Parts: sequence; C-alpha cells; structure tokens
Amino acid sequence: MKNLLNNIPKNLLDELFETLIKTDAIHIERIISKGHTSPEEDWYDQDLNEWILLLKGAARLAFEDGSEVSMGPGDSLEIPAHVKHKGVWTGPEGETVWAAVHFA
Amino acid sequence: MKNLLNNIPKNLLDELFETLIKTDAIHIERIISKGHTSPEEDWYDQDLNEWILLLKGAARLAFEDGSEVSMGPGDSLEIPAHVKHKGVWTGPEGETVWAAVHFA
Repeated sequence: MKNLLNNIPKNLLDELFETLIKTDAIHIERIISKGHTSPEEDWYDQDLNEWILLLKGAARLAFEDGSEVSMGPGDSLEIPAHVKHKGVWTGPEGETVWAAVHFA
Repeated sequence: MKNLLNNIPKNLLDELFETLIKTDAIHIERIISKGHTSPEEDWYDQDLNEWILLLKGAARLAFEDGSEVSMGPGDSLEIPAHVKHKGVWTGPEGETVWAAVHFA
C-alpha cells in the first residue's frame, strides 16, 4: 500500500514524477508540483491518452485552443492523446498532488 | 471536468459504481460506499488487475489469505487479477469515495 499524500520530499526544485504502475497497457504515476509551471512554449504533446485526478492543492491548465481550466481537490479530467496542454499555475503554498493514468 | 467528491447521491442503498472512462485497455470508475460491506462469502475475483485509490473516508479490505488492510485518504493499492478480496468495513459516517482503475 502506498499513500500518495505522504512521503513528499521537502525540497521540490522540479516537479516530481513517480511511477506507481507501468505495464504495456497503462502507466500510473504520482505527480507533485509546488508552484511549478511549464515553460512558456513547452506544451505537453503526448502519444497516450491521460486521465488526471487532483488529490490536494490547486492548479490551472491551459490548452492550445486558448481554453483554461482550474482544478481543485477531487477534480478529474481526461486529456486525449496529442491535445497539447501545459500547467500555467499551481498553488505556491503547499504541494499539489496528482494521480495520472496514461493509456492507449 | 468531473469532481469525484461532489454530486454524491444522498441515499446510498447500495454501493455506487460509476464508469468514468472505458476503453479496450482500461476501465476507470468512481466507487462510493457508505457503511457497505461485501456479503460474507462474496469475494471479488476479477479477470483484470485493479489499482484503487481512496479519496475520502475509510475502509478495510480482506484477502483470501486472511490478511487485511486498512485504508484512509490518499492510500492506494494494486490488486492483481484473481487475487480474491472483499470490503469488510467502510466508515459508517459520511461516504467513502474511491477511484479504481482496471487494466489487463
């Protein structure tokens, strides 16, 4: 058993991506952000579909079509493959913790 | 976007299983329990692997080998296919909310 809200490193210089399960079919990871955002021009363009679930904290995501979405605890979102997106804001105080499921 | 902690039905006569994503590769669902437990002899024996994440509440799972595990918010667990398990207790006050990912 692993608790996703515990064992958070104190000094998060970069976003932390931690693989929980990886098979041919899926990749489940924990992501921890602390005030991190993606670089201005650095869109995620992923070959796999992604389902994200925000467990703790707050974040705002932007999409290439100009739309943005604000997320808080319990919010989940499906991001289809190759829908370009990036994090434009995460809460500066305390960590923002996600579970992310990547699937074909 | 869907918040897994909101829109919880008031009267939960049975555990609620709600599909969030279903493809050939995976099945992601929200499960809401409120004091529900599996019947004494009614083990889950699943063809797919399962990854569960408890978002809110508390629960205790039992496994056929006699072991038990207590789970609280943030706890995640992988249950391989055909490992028989059941819920033996969920918190009676308030709902227990899970995200579950089934994968081959």
